[in-house]
Amino acid sequence: MSRIIIIGGVAAGATAASKARRCCADREIELYDKAKTISYAGCGLPYMISGVVQEEKKLIARKPEQFKKKDGVTVFTEHNVEGIDTDRHMLRIRDLKEGRVFEREYAKLLIATGASPFVPSMEGKGIEGVFTLRSFEDAIAIMDFIKSRNPKKALIVGAGPIGLEMCESFCRLGMKTTLIEGAAQIAPLIDSDYSERIQKTIENEGVECRTGESIRAIYGNRNVERIATDAEEYEADIVLLAIGIRPSAEIAANAGIEIGEKGAVKVGDGMRTSAEDVFAAGDCATSKHVLTGEEVWIPLGSTSRKQGRVAAETMFGADSVFRGTAGSFVVKVFDMTVGKTGFSLREAKNAGFDCVEIEMEGESLPGYYPGGGTMFAKVIAERRSRCIMGAQMVGDYGAAVERRLDVFSIALTCRMTVDELQQADLVYAPPYNATLDLPIVAASLLQGKIDGKICQCDSEGLE
Amino acid sequence: MSRIIIIGGVAAGATAASKARRCCADREIELYDKAKTISYAGCGLPYMISGVVQEEKKLIARKPEQFKKKDGVTVFTEHNVEGIDTDRHMLRIRDLKEGRVFEREYAKLLIATGASPFVPSMEGKGIEGVFTLRSFEDAIAIMDFIKSRNPKKALIVGAGPIGLEMCESFCRLGMKTTLIEGAAQIAPLIDSDYSERIQKTIENEGVECRTGESIRAIYGNRNVERIATDAEEYEADIVLLAIGIRPSAEIAANAGIEIGEKGAVKVGDGMRTSAEDVFAAGDCATSKHVLTGEEVWIPLGSTSRKQGRVAAETMFGADSVFRGTAGSFVVKVFDMTVGKTGFSLREAKNAGFDCVEIEMEGESLPGYYPGGGTMFAKVIAERRSRCIMGAQMVGDYGAAVERRLDVFSIALTCRMTVDELQQADLVYAPPYNATLDLPIVAASLLQGKIDGKICQCDSEGLE
Repeated sequence: MSRIIIIGGVAAGATAASKARRCCADREIELYDKAKTISYAGCGLPYMISGVVQEEKKLIARKPEQFKKKDGVTVFTEHNVEGIDTDRHMLRIRDLKEGRVFEREYAKLLIATGASPFVPSMEGKGIEGVFTLRSFEDAIAIMDFIKSRNPKKALIVGAGPIGLEMCESFCRLGMKTTLIEGAAQIAPLIDSDYSERIQKTIENEGVECRTGESIRAIYGNRNVERIATDAEEYEADIVLLAIGIRPSAEIAANAGIEIGEKGAVKVGDGMRTSAEDVFAAGDCATSKHVLTGEEVWIPLGSTSRKQGRVAAETMFGADSVFRGTAGSFVVKVFDMTVGKTGFSLREAKNAGFDCVEIEMEGESLPGYYPGGGTMFAKVIAERRSRCIMGAQMVGDYGAAVERRLDVFSIALTCRMTVDELQQADLVYAPPYNATLDLPIVAASLLQGKIDGKICQCDSEGLE
Repeated sequence: MSRIIIIGGVAAGATAASKARRCCADREIELYDKAKTISYAGCGLPYMISGVVQEEKKLIARKPEQFKKKDGVTVFTEHNVEGIDTDRHMLRIRDLKEGRVFEREYAKLLIATGASPFVPSMEGKGIEGVFTLRSFEDAIAIMDFIKSRNPKKALIVGAGPIGLEMCESFCRLGMKTTLIEGAAQIAPLIDSDYSERIQKTIENEGVECRTGESIRAIYGNRNVERIATDAEEYEADIVLLAIGIRPSAEIAANAGIEIGEKGAVKVGDGMRTSAEDVFAAGDCATSKHVLTGEEVWIPLGSTSRKQGRVAAETMFGADSVFRGTAGSFVVKVFDMTVGKTGFSLREAKNAGFDCVEIEMEGESLPGYYPGGGTMFAKVIAERRSRCIMGAQMVGDYGAAVERRLDVFSIALTCRMTVDELQQADLVYAPPYNATLDLPIVAASLLQGKIDGKICQCDSEGLE
């Protein structure tokens, strides 16, 4: 018996299925997913809802029949894996369409069950017009509701990446949108002063922002009508609960597989779980931080795909390892880009690093060249090692903030010092950036700060 | 006597002057330049000529009086330094406006004389309407000529970065433009198949391209009328000679200072020349290649500024070093971006490295998200060390090729392996890039090539 079984068919699972076939030409590979639709671009869903993505089908990378044809992977959608018997290497699976339950043996098993939206227990959360956004079906349900009910007032609970992206989506669809966040600031992953910039941006677009208010109840008869926070009541025709996600690790926990950080399935570098022949990857699994090596749970689509690839390789005995995440992310918030890689100063301190921080503002293009935009950056480096440890940035969408974040990401992954980054040979021409681009100037300022010198000659636009 | 003298006031010289003041608050600093205008953005000149840059003055970062006021640097424009007496620490300087020659003593001297356009000796090169483009005054002369004579037919000799950029400038101004290159291909720094893509782009814009033809003579009476190559004759109302540049190192050579690669002033890591208390930086000086440590001459504006900074620091006894250049560059050619960092496969082989190369095509954004563009990349890695060694790219202007070049540049500077880059935690969201961005896919393909596996699952758009 050499059958590979994969539970979950989105980022980690779909990548692993495809990779597993390439690692091994002749093994039987089966993929089970409780949803109807697999292998879709989860991060694209807010853009499908807003209409920026015109063809829904384009979000689906590969259909079940394509998996069969291209990869020889047999896909079972609407099949829920209800139990894992790790001793017998056996799964208990329910066919959700037919109600039938059956057993299936695996030689190697990959758990790629992802994560689920967290919904606090409260009155009215089952009322029509109250949504979460995680799966393709979730997005379709929201779109169908908007089409049939034509809601005018949208209320989003939770100002993380999904909540922020959905502000733009609902506004684009003409809805009066209110954003409620339980924490003291929106975008809790970012420092509060940058968070204020983001808030100003979305308020300028007409979104009403309320921070420090927690949702308590949802009211309505046939349809949602209003919600209550601990401070106030708000009218709403549609509610999106984007409070956060939790790893979908129950099936692993129930099978006695070890659970790690934040309730995710604990995995080693090769994505092995505590059970023999059982692997886990993606949002349901732990990973490690590239700067500390410590176990973390930072669910990101790009990480999921990398972990799925590693899992497929180690299933076949390769000594592939997942090298870690820097928590790098970027979010478009209307015409603003927000992103981060590595640690903030506070996070670095909490992790035991003595870092210095510089704050700067920069233009993406030379002053004389038209276009571009403004960027704000906070960059930190460790005092002793002089290594780059993180960057937070906000800026105009046209300023290519993401380009500078990628530079900082590679720099911190490579343990690059401020002295090295300060001389990085980044490409330069006036239509693309300033002679000495933001990461170089940032590194120069960090040098000065670490060495106790005031030396900012590079930030003054000399050519 | 503690006077610092800097010869040359563009990228390296202007940066060094400003930096020197910050390193040392009380020394006398003088800067001499034979031109009228200093501290301008040399790389912006093609865009000033084309009119993309609307205000000429914006190209000037700092005027002489601003140097005086902000940095306490006394600037002497239209002053040519004719000789250096390294024993006596004395310069012989000619005031070009008044004709007066005088001597001036230095404690420390920085030679930042830049480079000059190479013009082969031939008939007619002094005829009106024949230009080179290097200094601010060169650009003004071209603009004045265009304004007063209204030329219809432009001819550019030399298809390096300046020649390519000026194709766009002349076309924008409505001139029928012909580009002549002596080598077998345009853009000789790039592989020939990419060069063909560039040629197709500029031909589509109406530029006539002739490769493998060398200029022999220029004809005309009051104004240029035609030029002759070794193959043909071409009519022209304006001619730009963009054949290449040579380091302006005569003054150093005449003073007995050691000359290095390609005739540039030989410098060590701290920008010290062979003469005591004499430093050199920028396009007149050698540098070292970050991948080999070998002496090279790769004149680039961004390198000049970094060298100027190092020179200013070492003048004051700091043990600052210039860490090397990767030859990174980017050029906009109409709506195409062309760039490179590190070695091509051929260059790596010539330098003694056993590398593998992958070629790939990628979209800058997920297929379902509107906008973006197509990129083509050739990326190489050393077989034994598995380190990234270089990347060449061409792509649509909107595809942010420069962003991926920066990632490769940092990766090769840090000796990042394909295994590390393949898991780089680059930022991701649909408005910015694919889940696994081009550098990650390239690294994955390189892994497969080095290990002899065919493993391309990442290039197939799975989310």
